[in-house]
Amino acid sequence: MLHSIATVSLSGTLLEKTRAIANAGYDGIELFENDLTISTVSPTDYRNLLAELGLELVGLQPFRDYEAMPEPFKTRSLDRAKRKFELMHQLDTETLFICSNTSPHTIDSLEKAAEDLYDMAELARQHGFRIGYEALSWGRHVNTYHQSVEIVRRANHPNLGNILDNFHISALNSTFEDIYTIPAHKLTIVQMADAPRFDMGAMHLGRHYRCFPGQGSFPVVEFLKAVQSTGYDGYLSHEIFSDEFRSSAIEPVAVDGKRSLIWLEQTLNQTPKPDLQRLEFVEFTTTPDAQPDLIDLLANLGFAETFRHRTKAVSLWQCGQVTVVLNRQADDYAPNTVCAIGFRTPDKQAVAQRAKQLRYDWQERSRSPNELDMPASRGIGGMLYYFIDESAGNAIYDLEFDPTGHTPTGPDALRFDHIGHTVGHDAYLSNTLYYRTLLGLSVDESLELLDPRGIVYSRVAANGSGSIRIPLSSSRSQGTSSDQFVARSGSGIQQIAWHTDDIFGLVASVRNKDLILPIPANYYDDLQAKTDLPDAQIAAMQAHNILYDRNESGVFFHVYFKEINGLFIEIVHRQGSYSRFGEINAQVRLAAQARTRT
Amino acid sequence: MLHSIATVSLSGTLLEKTRAIANAGYDGIELFENDLTISTVSPTDYRNLLAELGLELVGLQPFRDYEAMPEPFKTRSLDRAKRKFELMHQLDTETLFICSNTSPHTIDSLEKAAEDLYDMAELARQHGFRIGYEALSWGRHVNTYHQSVEIVRRANHPNLGNILDNFHISALNSTFEDIYTIPAHKLTIVQMADAPRFDMGAMHLGRHYRCFPGQGSFPVVEFLKAVQSTGYDGYLSHEIFSDEFRSSAIEPVAVDGKRSLIWLEQTLNQTPKPDLQRLEFVEFTTTPDAQPDLIDLLANLGFAETFRHRTKAVSLWQCGQVTVVLNRQADDYAPNTVCAIGFRTPDKQAVAQRAKQLRYDWQERSRSPNELDMPASRGIGGMLYYFIDESAGNAIYDLEFDPTGHTPTGPDALRFDHIGHTVGHDAYLSNTLYYRTLLGLSVDESLELLDPRGIVYSRVAANGSGSIRIPLSSSRSQGTSSDQFVARSGSGIQQIAWHTDDIFGLVASVRNKDLILPIPANYYDDLQAKTDLPDAQIAAMQAHNILYDRNESGVFFHVYFKEINGLFIEIVHRQGSYSRFGEINAQVRLAAQARTRT
Repeated sequence: MLHSIATVSLSGTLLEKTRAIANAGYDGIELFENDLTISTVSPTDYRNLLAELGLELVGLQPFRDYEAMPEPFKTRSLDRAKRKFELMHQLDTETLFICSNTSPHTIDSLEKAAEDLYDMAELARQHGFRIGYEALSWGRHVNTYHQSVEIVRRANHPNLGNILDNFHISALNSTFEDIYTIPAHKLTIVQMADAPRFDMGAMHLGRHYRCFPGQGSFPVVEFLKAVQSTGYDGYLSHEIFSDEFRSSAIEPVAVDGKRSLIWLEQTLNQTPKPDLQRLEFVEFTTTPDAQPDLIDLLANLGFAETFRHRTKAVSLWQCGQVTVVLNRQADDYAPNTVCAIGFRTPDKQAVAQRAKQLRYDWQERSRSPNELDMPASRGIGGMLYYFIDESAGNAIYDLEFDPTGHTPTGPDALRFDHIGHTVGHDAYLSNTLYYRTLLGLSVDESLELLDPRGIVYSRVAANGSGSIRIPLSSSRSQGTSSDQFVARSGSGIQQIAWHTDDIFGLVASVRNKDLILPIPANYYDDLQAKTDLPDAQIAAMQAHNILYDRNESGVFFHVYFKEINGLFIEIVHRQGSYSRFGEINAQVRLAAQARTRT
Repeated sequence: MLHSIATVSLSGTLLEKTRAIANAGYDGIELFENDLTISTVSPTDYRNLLAELGLELVGLQPFRDYEAMPEPFKTRSLDRAKRKFELMHQLDTETLFICSNTSPHTIDSLEKAAEDLYDMAELARQHGFRIGYEALSWGRHVNTYHQSVEIVRRANHPNLGNILDNFHISALNSTFEDIYTIPAHKLTIVQMADAPRFDMGAMHLGRHYRCFPGQGSFPVVEFLKAVQSTGYDGYLSHEIFSDEFRSSAIEPVAVDGKRSLIWLEQTLNQTPKPDLQRLEFVEFTTTPDAQPDLIDLLANLGFAETFRHRTKAVSLWQCGQVTVVLNRQADDYAPNTVCAIGFRTPDKQAVAQRAKQLRYDWQERSRSPNELDMPASRGIGGMLYYFIDESAGNAIYDLEFDPTGHTPTGPDALRFDHIGHTVGHDAYLSNTLYYRTLLGLSVDESLELLDPRGIVYSRVAANGSGSIRIPLSSSRSQGTSSDQFVARSGSGIQQIAWHTDDIFGLVASVRNKDLILPIPANYYDDLQAKTDLPDAQIAAMQAHNILYDRNESGVFFHVYFKEINGLFIEIVHRQGSYSRFGEINAQVRLAAQARTRT
């Protein structure tokens, strides 16, 4: 299908939007009329610009409050339409988008609506134009596509078709079954959006929180499947009203929109998803003087420096299945920040191909025979995501590294549980899309975590098996943990959680207890009131500053270590099939971290 | 009544919140239990702190998911309550707040709910405690106060009473009539909040957008009137869940909460409101080199320098009923910013008294016999609000100023129409409260104006006659007109609109046409399509860059001048009883202003 986007979806001036849309590789553009009205560009100049940029003007929108109106409104509207048809001649576009009526004067009559649309379509025909009609979910009488499709059927005019916008359909939780009944030639255009499932009216949600498919929780693929079944092969378009996008940089948002459409079609066509098996390593850039804190913590957890690079100032610290790369030669990051993470995958070429299709950065590592074949994608915030053959096993490091002979003393079963990625609020949706589209992860709804200085939003990107879990966090509030981290280090990994099968044993083995984040006694008093845990077990948790959660699936123990430059390590121990992250304890953790910072 | 506030209403740690609450002058505090759980302060230490600060601990809250539960939940909850009663002994508080059940396990039975609350009240009685019960608007079965009051009535236990929270009541648009039936001794506590009327579920609204009475649109006074009628004279308390407050400075929010309660009681007791008659002047601080732009504009509009101060570098520019003070000797403001505004009032002592009661800054001007008696309040952002006797007439300036003999050439009927006050988003609610409580203005709901770089929120503070109108604006988005203004000049007056009865004549008289903000031709093409105005009239508007609006009440013409350091002048012409501000043209104006900035 062809791709387009409505100008209203982006910030900036009409010219800025239009150039960004062309640069992002869309085929067409919907002109939101207000963008022209407030612009100094004449319709003819705009038409010439579009021709120059190779963008088709898919339509002029929206024409409001037309159908099912008594006189004198109807005649006035037709007069208005005549002016707009003149404008469309100047702009060289043939489609006018009409959305369902929100005026208090409109009449509740499908028959009258059909008559009025017939009259408008007939007027359009005289100009060689056509009309698309769409149900706004907050239309006064017409608010479902079931109604708008029926009106178009009754009007039965060749120059009148349907606009389907999945936002309005899914905001009201309409089923998709009637879509299958629409003939392809009666589909004027299909608009695709996504949105979070917030507890608010369709209008408030639709005017503030729409986002690109893959950034929210609406059933976007199922909707498109229904559309595909009709044989429709016209434009897939975006009409996104978003507070976030309205105040974001123009170009990156335009590109994300294009990515979301590519991803939608890939998903629809069942293009295989990248198969990430597990996290292989995290790589820290560090400096000689910043290093001791981190190494002290690793040593206390039983990590050992097992490998040193033959030619670079890089060494590996390992324990169980966890590798931490300490890179002392990079100099473009703050000390002790994670500059890269590595995933094991059986087919890194599949990821490469997807990166290319989605226009994400991709870097083949220029390598000699004794360099590891480890391509990477630079993510939204600059961090590198490496991809390593699953088949390469642990021998991969031998190619570039020499063993030191040191042996970890920590748990053999230690493994990555999750890594927490913290980003600025303006990068939250972009990163969501990166994880969903490039890495093929699912991303759940955002949760709100309470920091003493404001709300931190967090959502989890994960693969199907749960072997990769990346909570993505962000905050708009100044002074929260997330905000302070981003202000200091930029977007990046703020949290690294490793799983052990014996958290009490591991924490007991930590010699320097001062590394552990202290949890207040009040927490354990409350735990005693809330649960039926034996006093001795609560006492043991309290002695080790271990936090606790349980649900129907299982039990979760976790302990935090004090921040190192805002980054923190967590040890978790899951029992049963507990699959959450102890979010119930986020507030006590955030407050404890805030105390260590002041 | 006594005043208290729940700790959840403020940002920061428990100690920070508690000290701020004491400093703000509350009598009591509700302890939101989580604030204690995440704190390192022991219950006994906290009790001692409260005693030291002179704050009564009004209660411990909330105890959740208790009533109308099957076993084993009920017994578990009673066990949990026993622990909480122990905690209450340590804390020295006698009231536990129970909110209605949201658990999927709860049973839909008022009878069972009453039985369970009886049992809890009986347990409380054994400890010398009492229970307050409140309907959450998102409770599973119990969500209206009609239900919770009925449950308490049926339980009929002396240690059980009602908690009324107007947020939950008004969020569901419940009427207040049942409040009149509650005996005062069955009211445990009354909680007061406000909220905007957003199109969202009570839970989303209630968890993110509550604010203090006077900052939103709920019928707060009517509610309190009903409460007063019961004879209740206990605590008026705040329980405010607000994203804004969670991330705001602690002390100012605590003080605003206290102000809102004082204002509520003043309003309830019909304490006369300050009577502001009209805007007398705006005062610019300026410097010799920044001055020409502003003076050029004033001169072009027909203002003349009519008075010079006898001893200070201050002069008055006047036209019609408008006075602009140019103060060249203040040095703590950016050049050409408004440092003060002056209101005429028949009783400035009433304002003084109110400022004192509400703990707003108040400055009596130290004066010699030849200095004007003109006290002032320094507002939230530092601007001075002067108050001038209405009776003093125009002679007031003779006391300190000498006439220059220059005569204005502009319209005799020129007067202040409105002044636009732009503030940072963290000061939007504070300023709302300032205008509502100190100045006695009404404040309407926020509108959203579309700037090319994001959304600008705007709401109008006005007196009853409309002779004073102050649109208050704010934006969270970087790069919007509001944001850039605040970044450059801080909070302050960004817009000054004067009214003329002949806008075409006035604009025609402006010799330097380059001062006028150009409006694109597309705007007038659209106006032609939208209205039935004669082509000649539209051409005249276009020739003068005059914008147009109309509604059922009347017609509105307005023209903007280019920004001077981000501040801009508008000339308006109202016909009929049009009382809005041409908001429909905000987008074209904001885009035009953005163009002049780049």
